[in-house]
Amino acid sequence: MTLPLANDRFLRALRREPVDRTPVWLMRQAGRYLPEYRQVRRKAGSFLAMAKHPEIACEVTLQPLRRFPLDAAILFSDILTIPDAMGLGLYFAEGEGPKFERPVRSAADVARLGVPDMEGELRYVMDAVRVIRRELHGAVPLIGFSGSPWTLACYMVEGGGSKDFARIKAMALNDPQALHALLSVNTEAVIAYLSAQRAAGAQALQVFDTWGGVLSPAMYREFSLPYLQRIARELERGEGDARAPLILFGKGTGAYLEELAASGAEGVGVDWLVELGEAARRTGGCVAVQGNLDPATLYGSPDAIRREVRRALDSWRDGNGGSREGHVFNLGHGMSPDMDPEHVAVLVDEVHAYSAR
Amino acid sequence: MTLPLANDRFLRALRREPVDRTPVWLMRQAGRYLPEYRQVRRKAGSFLAMAKHPEIACEVTLQPLRRFPLDAAILFSDILTIPDAMGLGLYFAEGEGPKFERPVRSAADVARLGVPDMEGELRYVMDAVRVIRRELHGAVPLIGFSGSPWTLACYMVEGGGSKDFARIKAMALNDPQALHALLSVNTEAVIAYLSAQRAAGAQALQVFDTWGGVLSPAMYREFSLPYLQRIARELERGEGDARAPLILFGKGTGAYLEELAASGAEGVGVDWLVELGEAARRTGGCVAVQGNLDPATLYGSPDAIRREVRRALDSWRDGNGGSREGHVFNLGHGMSPDMDPEHVAVLVDEVHAYSAR
Repeated sequence: MTLPLANDRFLRALRREPVDRTPVWLMRQAGRYLPEYRQVRRKAGSFLAMAKHPEIACEVTLQPLRRFPLDAAILFSDILTIPDAMGLGLYFAEGEGPKFERPVRSAADVARLGVPDMEGELRYVMDAVRVIRRELHGAVPLIGFSGSPWTLACYMVEGGGSKDFARIKAMALNDPQALHALLSVNTEAVIAYLSAQRAAGAQALQVFDTWGGVLSPAMYREFSLPYLQRIARELERGEGDARAPLILFGKGTGAYLEELAASGAEGVGVDWLVELGEAARRTGGCVAVQGNLDPATLYGSPDAIRREVRRALDSWRDGNGGSREGHVFNLGHGMSPDMDPEHVAVLVDEVHAYSAR
Repeated sequence: MTLPLANDRFLRALRREPVDRTPVWLMRQAGRYLPEYRQVRRKAGSFLAMAKHPEIACEVTLQPLRRFPLDAAILFSDILTIPDAMGLGLYFAEGEGPKFERPVRSAADVARLGVPDMEGELRYVMDAVRVIRRELHGAVPLIGFSGSPWTLACYMVEGGGSKDFARIKAMALNDPQALHALLSVNTEAVIAYLSAQRAAGAQALQVFDTWGGVLSPAMYREFSLPYLQRIARELERGEGDARAPLILFGKGTGAYLEELAASGAEGVGVDWLVELGEAARRTGGCVAVQGNLDPATLYGSPDAIRREVRRALDSWRDGNGGSREGHVFNLGHGMSPDMDPEHVAVLVDEVHAYSAR
């Protein structure tokens, strides 16, 4: 655990220090697009079974690193471990995504929720972090993660995915106090969860506000942003080189870049709807920025992928006063099962090759 | 056809002239949330059968006007009539939305497409416009509409709805010329279609760029915006009080408000991700703005609906130098089948009552 990292580009970029090339990792880099992942999944039986077995979670976390020279590993887990540990009963309906047996529909439901025991119900996550850290042998840093309080609440109230977020928006309109109570307990749980992941060995921490972008600006500033700000303010993450930086990623939340950058988080993750150059100008060097290639770029030809990677790298540099510092290359959202691993190799190669010039 | 309108608030607002109260209509105001609509649909058998029979299309267009004092009617039709008339074979798979039997997958597929005959394959649309105009008896103006060239292309290439737009984005990356050829023929068809609707009696015209917001800024400015600009420039729409104003509505395209406002269109429609006050400031009085209540607001209580309506009206007025002029109240997206007609009544009432003060 105390050995220096063989490759600390990712952490240096998050500290806005000089790097020899732009670091790159990909959201959902451990996933179904890899045949070796599909093989493990078939044996394990289900996604949840994989996430709940630390050795299996470790194996699939490491798989993409064996294929591609990625600059960070990210814990293989589910975004909904916290509400599952709160007793909502997470399950996956075939072809429908995650669902909860006991969704949260009222103030009384909210009142029953508590922060789970991180070395109890959620010990399997911490064990996975410990095993992965050990097996990484200091090659690259390990990123821990959590859903944002708002994003967790979306699943908890809707009972699963949603197209229109009708139930949680109705709660926001009709019983905002109940929703704030839910968001508060979620925030406490997220802080405890990320702290425990750091204690177990995670060297950077990312919060996914996947559904922040479905809110009007007034609602985002009432129901999502303040809780992200609280996490950035209260989450203990160490000092100096030992500090585990926090990245706040939001989908469709480019309008709030300045506010996210001022939150105290070390990094802000953006989707492809914001140009990186604009992100650089609007954050003004006070945070690192992570992103933002449209994942659909991976459906393009190798030539097209290389062109789009260069365009993104140039956009950052042009908006960042000619410097590549402070940028972590990533997609603007997770990878999909039908993507070609060969195309991922091209992407990673081009990020490193072009940014090294 | 030459009688003056009994209620021309909507057209006056689009000309940025003074109005006695803010006009309001709702996207998908003729729809499944109305029991009388569901009854007609059961008899007609399908959505397409309704759209293709002018008398039925007229009946459902008028239904919401009998319930609510709306300030405009919108033609009941489908967004995909043009590609259907081009020969792609539109059908609706139960619970899956629109599909095409013969999607566009290659430059060769694109080369086979032509602008349909507006009084041939698409005569049923023009007949519907004529019947509705007659039956409205000049009560309120009738809005005609079309999908945008990009949004039509999304359905044509994907073969239906999509979550990730993988096929059309691959075409944009790998064969941009083919996509531009498709967008060009779509643009010609949209211009001919809207012209024919105006000739048949439509008094305002709206283009729905429903999927503009899935593109990166660079791609939006290459594949959607220029075609919207061409429509705004080339579409003949008359002069003075007889002019049929053009509204460009985009979902998730708030970042391009200035460019859309400078296109020559009379109105820009925005979703709920942009504050109306900000929209007013950014468009600077050069266009009218239509929008933008989150449709999920209709899941709120009557009190919550009234509060959110007032908030939106105030936001516009505050950003618009204290004036209510130049604003058409609407939702930021279409209504859903599970919405309560009583709540729509509350919304319409509050828009009129509060803005008349």
